[in-house]
Formats: sequence, structure tokens, C-alpha cells
Amino acid sequence: MEYEKILPEIIQENDKKILLVVLDGIGGLPHPITGKTELETARIPNLDYFAKIGSCGLIIPVLPGITPGSGPGHIALFGYDPIEIQIGRGILECLGIGLEVKKGEIAIRGNFATIDENKIVTDRRAGRIPTEENEKIVNLISENIREIKGIKIKIKTVKEHRCAIILSGENLSIDVSENDPGKEGKPLKNFVPLSEKGKFTAEVLNEFEERVINLLKNVDTKAKCILLRGFSTYPEIKTFKEKYKLNACCIATYPMYKGISKLVGMDVIDCGETVEEEIMALQKVYNDYNFFFLHIKKTDSLGEDGNFEGKVKFIEEIDKKIELIKSMEFEAIAITGDHSTPSKLKGHSWHPVPFVLVSPNTIPDDVQRFTEKECSKGILGNMYSKNVMYLLLACSLKLGKFGA
Amino acid sequence: MEYEKILPEIIQENDKKILLVVLDGIGGLPHPITGKTELETARIPNLDYFAKIGSCGLIIPVLPGITPGSGPGHIALFGYDPIEIQIGRGILECLGIGLEVKKGEIAIRGNFATIDENKIVTDRRAGRIPTEENEKIVNLISENIREIKGIKIKIKTVKEHRCAIILSGENLSIDVSENDPGKEGKPLKNFVPLSEKGKFTAEVLNEFEERVINLLKNVDTKAKCILLRGFSTYPEIKTFKEKYKLNACCIATYPMYKGISKLVGMDVIDCGETVEEEIMALQKVYNDYNFFFLHIKKTDSLGEDGNFEGKVKFIEEIDKKIELIKSMEFEAIAITGDHSTPSKLKGHSWHPVPFVLVSPNTIPDDVQRFTEKECSKGILGNMYSKNVMYLLLACSLKLGKFGA
Repeated sequence: MEYEKILPEIIQENDKKILLVVLDGIGGLPHPITGKTELETARIPNLDYFAKIGSCGLIIPVLPGITPGSGPGHIALFGYDPIEIQIGRGILECLGIGLEVKKGEIAIRGNFATIDENKIVTDRRAGRIPTEENEKIVNLISENIREIKGIKIKIKTVKEHRCAIILSGENLSIDVSENDPGKEGKPLKNFVPLSEKGKFTAEVLNEFEERVINLLKNVDTKAKCILLRGFSTYPEIKTFKEKYKLNACCIATYPMYKGISKLVGMDVIDCGETVEEEIMALQKVYNDYNFFFLHIKKTDSLGEDGNFEGKVKFIEEIDKKIELIKSMEFEAIAITGDHSTPSKLKGHSWHPVPFVLVSPNTIPDDVQRFTEKECSKGILGNMYSKNVMYLLLACSLKLGKFGA
Repeated sequence: MEYEKILPEIIQENDKKILLVVLDGIGGLPHPITGKTELETARIPNLDYFAKIGSCGLIIPVLPGITPGSGPGHIALFGYDPIEIQIGRGILECLGIGLEVKKGEIAIRGNFATIDENKIVTDRRAGRIPTEENEKIVNLISENIREIKGIKIKIKTVKEHRCAIILSGENLSIDVSENDPGKEGKPLKNFVPLSEKGKFTAEVLNEFEERVINLLKNVDTKAKCILLRGFSTYPEIKTFKEKYKLNACCIATYPMYKGISKLVGMDVIDCGETVEEEIMALQKVYNDYNFFFLHIKKTDSLGEDGNFEGKVKFIEEIDKKIELIKSMEFEAIAITGDHSTPSKLKGHSWHPVPFVLVSPNTIPDDVQRFTEKECSKGILGNMYSKNVMYLLLACSLKLGKFGA
């Protein structure tokens, strides 16, 4: 990223406080009947107030047309290039269930699958077994397979047929092929080393798989083996302290976002489940940090459910609570999302996300509403998510002059 | 290009259809008297309709301030970086007339020109001789000069004074200067090697030119020599099938655009000369492809002629015919140009080009007219041509999620 070349010489520490509010998946698409998006439908006087007093724009999460997962979406908002810094799928799966990964460990995504007596994969998702059944099997495996060749194995339930696995010990490597044949009707593959370095890890995984298969042979479940993929190690990433000289904290309710925040060196603050509880947590730690990442999840979940009305209602709920922020002092506030999650598409999307920057050091534009269409007319225009952090740093006067 | 790093893992094949309509050189500049551009002057209810129901913006062909030729203009629209992937004019000229170029061969553009007895160039276009005359001369050359120093020479008529030439054999190189003096009244230049590698090719070309001049000396034509330029080899470029998993076809009336399309692996569809015939061809092959590139040329030619009224009239003609598209089903339609060709400048220009994206998966904005000024107020803002393909792929749900 180009900023990296000049940041160390211009970054300046000060006490001014920055607040980054991420309304996960906030952007939407027009409702087929009303022609209005979720934000356009909702009554949001407080978000509109911020749009009125702030500088508005739309942010492109990764590149035009690219739909980001939560990883790239947040990595970009945190000021890293989301294509350069890719966090392994295994890591994200572990972070998502609050399983901490340390340097040197290998994090892996697992799918329980069904195989027949000839090890032909007959169902790559084991009939999407219930999460409770997954938990029982995971317990059985945990109790029986703790270590192989000196490598400690930790396995945890994610949900349905999914689990997460961490290997820890010496001489581990991610240079190993996956064992998923990719299609039903094909035989389970062996783990094959992709380089000399991966030889030992492949041996460990092949033994692990064999023992899992034996263990599940006589258990009453469709889960008869595990397909392992997304082998990943702790990413090389500079922390907020190192990169921005910021004391940063995260207020989030979901493990995934707490996990990504930890990766960039944020302290994760205890908070409850509701937006109100999150804002109370923000007030509580207000004096202890100068960067606050406040993550609100349910806008995304409701969008993924295709629940247009639910998303509208929840946006209105956020709006009520977010009023509390007005009375707190921040030198720079950004309110935006990591990506759009239109109810219409029942999933993340590529659409640019409404963005407002509130600061005494920015130019308020004519935008009156916090919506996709109105924000697109704002003074910031269309910009990339990965640039957001630098506007926040600039507005809080933490970036010195570049060049004489 | 950054997309390349993530595209292979997210591209998804489906049957949804994409239409890219390129109105060549559509953008313009204000008329000195009315103050209105060609698009602002024309009555275009159908193009305005698309602007109303779609997402609008302006697209920058290469970089701000850079005027593209047809090559870069289209290469960018096809989702390649036009600075990274540069295609020689010689290649485009050859491909456009169905003259296949293979790896290792050199493709060259030729202009017949008039010289006097002292080899002073008196007309760089040989009075734009009729195509039939060109064909006769090309036949004469073909029959008399088939090979020089073991290098096979193929020559074909393009039109008027233009021809295309392919050299095939060993030890060829494009490190050779051109022989066009650039101005009338100056002597024809020799071909000079630009490096050691180009020495042999320069010898071949100098002998070729001499023999052509001798051959044409006593023929009743203004064509007395050939100016050769655009020496080029086959570029390394991924096809639409390889890159996007698309079955793509091209509907165009001019050789150049058929040539570029072939280069990226599109099938070139037979069609007549008029816009109506082109759209009929589109309807005819509708079931056979999932990507359609429809190129309409005359907007550019009229702009190049400085014919403001002619361009306005032709835009109105396009508008009438383009109504037929409304009744066809596409998941994503883009209507735009490869660059602007303001009648005022009588040539291509750098000005960003009106762009509209029509899809059930995009947000219609408040733009009411398909003009430069109105499109600039659209939700897509100013974007780069090279990003257009990715919006089309996204809107037709052919791009999966990037990262978890």
C-alpha cells in the first residue's frame, strides 16, 4: 500500500479521539415494490443528522464489483490493503468462534462429511447435521485425539457440519494439499505435502483423519470423516500501535470481529449483546483509548436472512441508540459499513457503502440523509474503504506534513 | 491488474446474460453557439430511459487526461489494464480483416502513399484510392513479392489506402523504425534497426519497399509506395473464456473491433452495416452466448469529421433502434463509449464518457438523461473503464465472495 511508504515519517501521536462505527452490511438495494432501500425506508433522524453535519461519500470495500467477506471488509476499513493482507480462512473460522490462534500454529476449517466403506465421499456436508450433534462428535474427538506425533490438536464446533481445528507444535507448515475431493462420488484424498516443509504436517493430518474415521465408524451420525481446508498461519500484520501509534479498542458482540480486532492489536472490551450495551461499554472505556471500533452486527444478519422489514426496524433501533454518541467528544467519527448486505440478495454484496465523516476539520456538504443515493452526492465522492483510516487520522490531526 | 489476483477464486459460471453496448466516441463537447454537447442536443428518449432506470456515472478510459485509441479504449472496457496490455496496431489491422496472426509473426499496418521521382512523399494517403484499386495493387504485390530472404510476406487490403502485412519466418523482430516521414514534402525514410535484433528485419523491409516501388512505378495509380508502421507481435492476453468463463460474441461492423474481440476470444457474428441489422444479429444469436459486445461505429466517424449535426442525428437514429433492446432479457446491460470524440476536436479525446448500468441488482439514481453532465451526478461517480467488466459480472451474479 502506498501509505506505508510515507506513514512512518508523518504519523503523530496525540490524545484526540477517533470513533469508527461499522454497521455491518448496512448498504442495501431497492425494495421491489417501494423502490426504496432499507436505509431509504427507515426513519433515521440521528444518522441523517450526522450526514447533515458531516462530509459524505460512498466507500468501495475492495474493488468495484468485488463482494468482500468480513475479513477483507474490515481489514480495508482498518487501513490495510485487503488484497495484499489476506487473512487465512482457517484463521477467520477460528476467530469466528473465539478460538485464539497464536504465531506458529496452523488454523484449519473443517467440514464433517459422509463416506462409504470404500472412503467414497457421499455427502460433503454430512447432511448438515444439527449443531448439537456436531458438538457431541467434537467432544468425542477432543477426548480421544489430543496429540499426534507431538502436535497438539484442538477442535471446536462452528455450526451444523462445520468445525475449526488448531494444530500447535514444532515444524508445522501450511504446504499441504486438502483432502476434499471437491465432488460427491469421489474418494477422500490423502493429505500430500506440497513441499519438503509440508511433509511432517501431512503425516500428522493423515494419521488424524484415519483416527477420526475409526472413531466415528460406529457412532450413529452421518459425520464419518472431516474435510480439512483453508490451512493458515497467523498473518504478518502491523498492529494499530505500530502502524498508527494508536491505543485502540474494539466493542463488538460477535467473535469474528473481536478476532480481527485482536489481530491488529486492539483491546477487546467486554460488552453485552445490544446496541445500547455496546454504547454503554464505549462510554465506560472512553478515557482509556484514543481509537474506538464499534461494530454492530445485526444489520448484516437480517440482510442475509432476506428480512427487509427486520433490517429497517433494526436500523431504526440503531438510530435511536446512536444519539448517545452526540454528547461524547470525538475529533473524528466515521459511520459506515464493511460492505452492503441487501435483503434482496440475502448475502454480502459489492455495492459501495454509505459513509459519513464527522469532524470539526472537514467540510459539511449538502447531503441531508444517510442513504446510498444521497451519500453518493457527498463531497467525498466514491472512495476506497482502505483510505478511510487516513481521513480519520488526518481529521484528528495525527498526520504531519509529507515533504517540506 | 489487482483483480487478477483474486478473480480465479471468485469467478462463477452461470447462464445470465450480459450486454455491453459501445457507442464509439459517444462523448462530446459543448457546441460553441448552443453550449450543448451532441448528447445534450439529441432527442434520445430511449437512452434517457436507460439512464432513468439504471445507475449512472462517467468512465475514464485510461487515466485522467489520456486520449485512447480504439485499442486501449476497448481493452479497458473488456476488463484489462490498457497500459499493461498494449496491442500493436498492426495486429488489430490484420485480425480485423480476418488475417490470422500467429506467435512469432510480425503484423504491420500499411498506408499506400504517393512519392515523386526523388522519393519525396507528396500524399501520405495516395489520394485515398478506392478500395477496388487497392485490391488490384495488393494482388500485383502478392503475386510478385512472396518471399524475401526466406521471410514469407502476406499482404491484404484493408480499405481505401490502407493495407495489412504479415511477415513470417525466423529471426524476425519489431525493433525497427518506421519509414513514414510524418509530413508531406519530406523524403521516404529507410527502415533502420533499433537494436541488433532488428537488423535482419530492417534489411527485409528495405528490400520489400524497393521492390514495391519498382513494381508500382508504371502502374496507373497514386499508390507508389507503402508507409509501414505499428510493427507488432501477438500479445499475451487471456481470453474471456479463460478469464471470466464467459461465452462471448461480438457484433460489430468495422474490422478493427472484430479484431480486438477475436483477440480476447469472442466469436465474431455476421451482421450487416446498420444499427438495426446489428440489433437483429443480436436477437438472432441471443440464445447462443452469455456475453454480447455490441459496437456501433458511426458516432466516432462523424465526430472525427467534425460533423456535429451528423453526430446528433446518428445518435437519434441509434436511440430509435436501441428501443428493441428493452424487450430482451439481460441481467446486466452497460451502455457507454470507448472514449469521447467531440465534433469540436475532430478526433478522440480524454473526456470521461457517459455510462449507464442497467440491472435488477443495482441502485437506480436520480439521473434523468444520458448526457455527460447528468451522468456525472450518478451514483457510480467517476470510475475507470477497466472496472466496468467487474460491475457487469457482479450484477449478473458471476462473482463469488472474496475472503471469508
